Amino acid sequence: MINRARVAVVGVGNNISALVQGIAFYRDSGSLVGIRRPVVDGLGVGDVDIVAAFAVSDEKVGADLTDAIFMAPNNYPRIGAGLPPSGVRVQWGLTDETGIDRVAQALAGAEVVLYMAPSGRPEVARAYAEAALRAGVAFVNATSDVVARDPHLLDRFEAAGLPLLGDDLTSQFGTSIVHHALLGLLEERGLTLVSSYQVNLGGTEDFRNLTQHGGSKMVSKLNALTGDQATKDKVQIAPLGYLSQLASEKVVYLNVEAQSWGGSPVSLDVKLKVHDPSGGAGVTIDLIRMAVGALRGGRGGYAAEAAALLKSPPGTAH
Amino acid sequence: MINRARVAVVGVGNNISALVQGIAFYRDSGSLVGIRRPVVDGLGVGDVDIVAAFAVSDEKVGADLTDAIFMAPNNYPRIGAGLPPSGVRVQWGLTDETGIDRVAQALAGAEVVLYMAPSGRPEVARAYAEAALRAGVAFVNATSDVVARDPHLLDRFEAAGLPLLGDDLTSQFGTSIVHHALLGLLEERGLTLVSSYQVNLGGTEDFRNLTQHGGSKMVSKLNALTGDQATKDKVQIAPLGYLSQLASEKVVYLNVEAQSWGGSPVSLDVKLKVHDPSGGAGVTIDLIRMAVGALRGGRGGYAAEAAALLKSPPGTAH
Amino acid sequence: MINRARVAVVGVGNNISALVQGIAFYRDSGSLVGIRRPVVDGLGVGDVDIVAAFAVSDEKVGADLTDAIFMAPNNYPRIGAGLPPSGVRVQWGLTDETGIDRVAQALAGAEVVLYMAPSGRPEVARAYAEAALRAGVAFVNATSDVVARDPHLLDRFEAAGLPLLGDDLTSQFGTSIVHHALLGLLEERGLTLVSSYQVNLGGTEDFRNLTQHGGSKMVSKLNALTGDQATKDKVQIAPLGYLSQLASEKVVYLNVEAQSWGGSPVSLDVKLKVHDPSGGAGVTIDLIRMAVGALRGGRGGYAAEAAALLKSPPGTAH
Amino acid sequence: MINRARVAVVGVGNNISALVQGIAFYRDSGSLVGIRRPVVDGLGVGDVDIVAAFAVSDEKVGADLTDAIFMAPNNYPRIGAGLPPSGVRVQWGLTDETGIDRVAQALAGAEVVLYMAPSGRPEVARAYAEAALRAGVAFVNATSDVVARDPHLLDRFEAAGLPLLGDDLTSQFGTSIVHHALLGLLEERGLTLVSSYQVNLGGTEDFRNLTQHGGSKMVSKLNALTGDQATKDKVQIAPLGYLSQLASEKVVYLNVEAQSWGGSPVSLDVKLKVHDPSGGAGVTIDLIRMAVGALRGGRGGYAAEAAALLKSPPGTAH
Repeated sequence: MINRARVAVVGVGNNISALVQGIAFYRDSGSLVGIRRPVVDGLGVGDVDIVAAFAVSDEKVGADLTDAIFMAPNNYPRIGAGLPPSGVRVQWGLTDETGIDRVAQALAGAEVVLYMAPSGRPEVARAYAEAALRAGVAFVNATSDVVARDPHLLDRFEAAGLPLLGDDLTSQFGTSIVHHALLGLLEERGLTLVSSYQVNLGGTEDFRNLTQHGGSKMVSKLNALTGDQATKDKVQIAPLGYLSQLASEKVVYLNVEAQSWGGSPVSLDVKLKVHDPSGGAGVTIDLIRMAVGALRGGRGGYAAEAAALLKSPPGTAH
Repeated sequence: MINRARVAVVGVGNNISALVQGIAFYRDSGSLVGIRRPVVDGLGVGDVDIVAAFAVSDEKVGADLTDAIFMAPNNYPRIGAGLPPSGVRVQWGLTDETGIDRVAQALAGAEVVLYMAPSGRPEVARAYAEAALRAGVAFVNATSDVVARDPHLLDRFEAAGLPLLGDDLTSQFGTSIVHHALLGLLEERGLTLVSSYQVNLGGTEDFRNLTQHGGSKMVSKLNALTGDQATKDKVQIAPLGYLSQLASEKVVYLNVEAQSWGGSPVSLDVKLKVHDPSGGAGVTIDLIRMAVGALRGGRGGYAAEAAALLKSPPGTAH
Repeated sequence: MINRARVAVVGVGNNISALVQGIAFYRDSGSLVGIRRPVVDGLGVGDVDIVAAFAVSDEKVGADLTDAIFMAPNNYPRIGAGLPPSGVRVQWGLTDETGIDRVAQALAGAEVVLYMAPSGRPEVARAYAEAALRAGVAFVNATSDVVARDPHLLDRFEAAGLPLLGDDLTSQFGTSIVHHALLGLLEERGLTLVSSYQVNLGGTEDFRNLTQHGGSKMVSKLNALTGDQATKDKVQIAPLGYLSQLASEKVVYLNVEAQSWGGSPVSLDVKLKVHDPSGGAGVTIDLIRMAVGALRGGRGGYAAEAAALLKSPPGTAH
Repeated sequence: MINRARVAVVGVGNNISALVQGIAFYRDSGSLVGIRRPVVDGLGVGDVDIVAAFAVSDEKVGADLTDAIFMAPNNYPRIGAGLPPSGVRVQWGLTDETGIDRVAQALAGAEVVLYMAPSGRPEVARAYAEAALRAGVAFVNATSDVVARDPHLLDRFEAAGLPLLGDDLTSQFGTSIVHHALLGLLEERGLTLVSSYQVNLGGTEDFRNLTQHGGSKMVSKLNALTGDQATKDKVQIAPLGYLSQLASEKVVYLNVEAQSWGGSPVSLDVKLKVHDPSGGAGVTIDLIRMAVGALRGGRGGYAAEAAALLKSPPGTAH
């Protein structure tokens, strides 16, 4: 019988809600719906146990993980019939470097830390990485904070025989993927792009936070679309629109105006609806299994097969 | 200086209107907008002359080609400022095998016949192919009638050192291309297709004719989408909808419903607007240049580089 | 305590499924969601009992109504948790005039017959009306067959003190309503209509039947939109598109192109999704209550307050 | 022969471009396309002359009005073939109270001042109103600044026999009108609103300015939709999205989710494209003619027939 992967999660937001509920769904149903890689390093999607969880919200800390994933501001929907208590009590997480030893002790029994707290606090991300090193467990950084891109840190994980995968998740399916595919299709068929825009609407707390520092996000989204300056000049991304009614659903409107033979107009209008946390969990499940597989196989440091799942793997710009 | 390709066209419908107007547009403007292959075998998109034209409409026959392309039921729009008379008078075409010699004589001076009459009269298509053989010119079959797929006919062209390219044009950009790309993207990202449909609306005479024998067309459209039976079972194509108000514009609605991680719903709605005749002309211009290049290079028979531009190249089913 | 309305239904299709399930939903939940008239003649939406049901399908006849409403080709979804058996066994209905007396006897205990069989068999509709007259119960004709528009029949109901409401239901909310409203809005604001189209897609058996005799349906749909010939000339309705994957959902695409000040373009694209059987049940519930209210109040014949709920009330063309 | 209305315009932005070009278009073509009221007080849409223009842009001042309307940041498209020089040279406008006398003198020959400068500088709006009073001409305030709502100012215009129409234009056709109509239709048919949102995208300088103080605009847009708090709570308006590629076009996405009978889902998705300046000019032309009609008829002060064209007529809140 397979030894399930043992994961400690940092952050108990919508993405963890999607991950926890999804694992239970797949384990109960035997379904493979929406799964990209049924088995990774011998581990199925149901072969993952959450063994510890850390958060910094007064309400979530102390609660059973099964309850905590439905606490505000989380708004990912309940899927399936209902989960039994997990037996995992959410613990106080780190806010700075104090407490690293405490967390390291709490990681006993885990094989990998999944770091999925809100982006933007790199010192916290590194404190957890430090705890992972002390506890001898692998580390997956799902946020855009610099962890795996730090060569010194990566060396230490490698030397310790511990996998370190990051940084920043791609989504299983989202705006950039669809927009990029359509622009690529146009180019491949010889059409000339006239103009294109993208509007992203969402209702999660993460999404609301992003609307505060929209400028940099727009640039990164634009970079995700194309490397060609001529195309970039014709593509515009509207400011993110927060609409609480959407909850964890994301709605995207894309428009593409182009010209074919003789300057003849071609237009494409797309409405895309996805749940971002699902798109994140669908990739996270693979990173977890890759990290545990590498740990068990004694392969420390970065694992090249993770590259397709990451926006900013080691070697890319900070 | 380049020797322009000399083309005889059969059928003076919307596609020829798009072709004729487009060539003039590119020649006048020097623009390369919407062009997939600026140069093929040394020939630019403007390096094509129409030297003869055949039709079977009382009104078009006898008219200058520049006038004939705007006669009903043609409804492709005028692009650019206006064309001077072409000097090419539309001649009576073939309706059966009588008259092949007359047409063969009229082909003197042409290098290639572009066969673009309405599909569904294979005996007429072959009569023109026969005329081409007698006149010693290449042949491009843009229709779905069996010409290049006839091994005996292909042998005769090859033996005569005459190129024969066909059958049936792909479009530069259209419903199948977009739908196929989106379904492929889903599969690549591990999403599970739940259902998908496609609705095609158009206003040309060709489109109206297709609505008569919609059944077979639906199947061929479905085949164009995917070779995977599981996907086919979930994709439905609504009957073609003729709406005269659209004229030569085609409007397509696509819907895709899928599931990602945990069965989470993903939906895509697309509205696509294209002018089919433009999509046809954008591919025809390449086939013409390939055929003339092959003729001049002494390469008879089928040319493998045409495969990507054809729906039913030699060897595919009748 | 209120005496519930006692209804005999003819036809056990999707509309009756929606009606039966909806009544149970409102009775159980106390909700008023989606209800236009909470109380009609003292009767709430839950104050309606189905006391008899007639059908001509081998499978449905003999089954409990609660089971029969989910039998193929019905495909209206299950709403709510599940219904207990109704205790009403579906009986053989009429296919012609023989059996009128049998049905009349079976109507004992009913106050109104709701005629909701497939349209197009007026002799059957009249046979049921005859049975209703003999049994002394009111009659609601939800189909487009001529019943209430037959002056002689209406006189007999009136003379007997029995209400007769019909013909043909409007929908609570559907394509014509939205399209009509948008065209009216344009006119009211002084915009000039350039062109407009409507595409209807559906997946019910009724919908599939309509695709057979699409022509007349298109005209009636066009008439529902506008009485103004200039507008009619610019509005086109695409052939109905049957897509089984939609089941009881109807998907409609509308496009409106117009001009405002200086000829400036205005365009509207709409996608509408509804369940037609729900739209029918939402109106039927009102007609039932009106008929029973009139019966109890001793008002025979047609009731003017029903006019807004009917497409073809008495006095309109056959 | 009719005496044309003589108008002095303040502000030479996109709205004035639409107005000037539209008047020329209607005068030349005799067309009535997109016109709500062909004749107002005996004046046709072509019976309006611009006799003076004021602006505060270095570039526009001194230019002929025909040239100035196409100067950046204006980006309303050219309609029609091209305008001859107007003979009206743009003059320096007011930035505060100094210069009122100069402007009053420049108004000699005008019958009405159309105040269409950017909103948000009420002291400038009043300075022009003062100049109008001194010059004895009517005043139309197309901006949201308080002018006609100032009772003292309105009294002075009335006492002087001068019409004063304002404040703030409705649009001939726009987001609020369509959204309001759809929500009203739902309510009328008894559907229950679940949620609704609206996203506005635009590319004019005015639009970009509005994105700076989006909060108050959102509230006013919400107020335009409905007076019912229960509905308001379910409708959300996304922040305005500035996309320069749209130029003077405005693109709006609306979504409405509702429930009909039995809680059955109904959804509506709308994409609306309009040119805001056209929508403004289509209403301005009526206000101008009403004001001139009232002036010539000796009716000073506010004219009640203008109410339907104004967002904030006298008596509404500041």
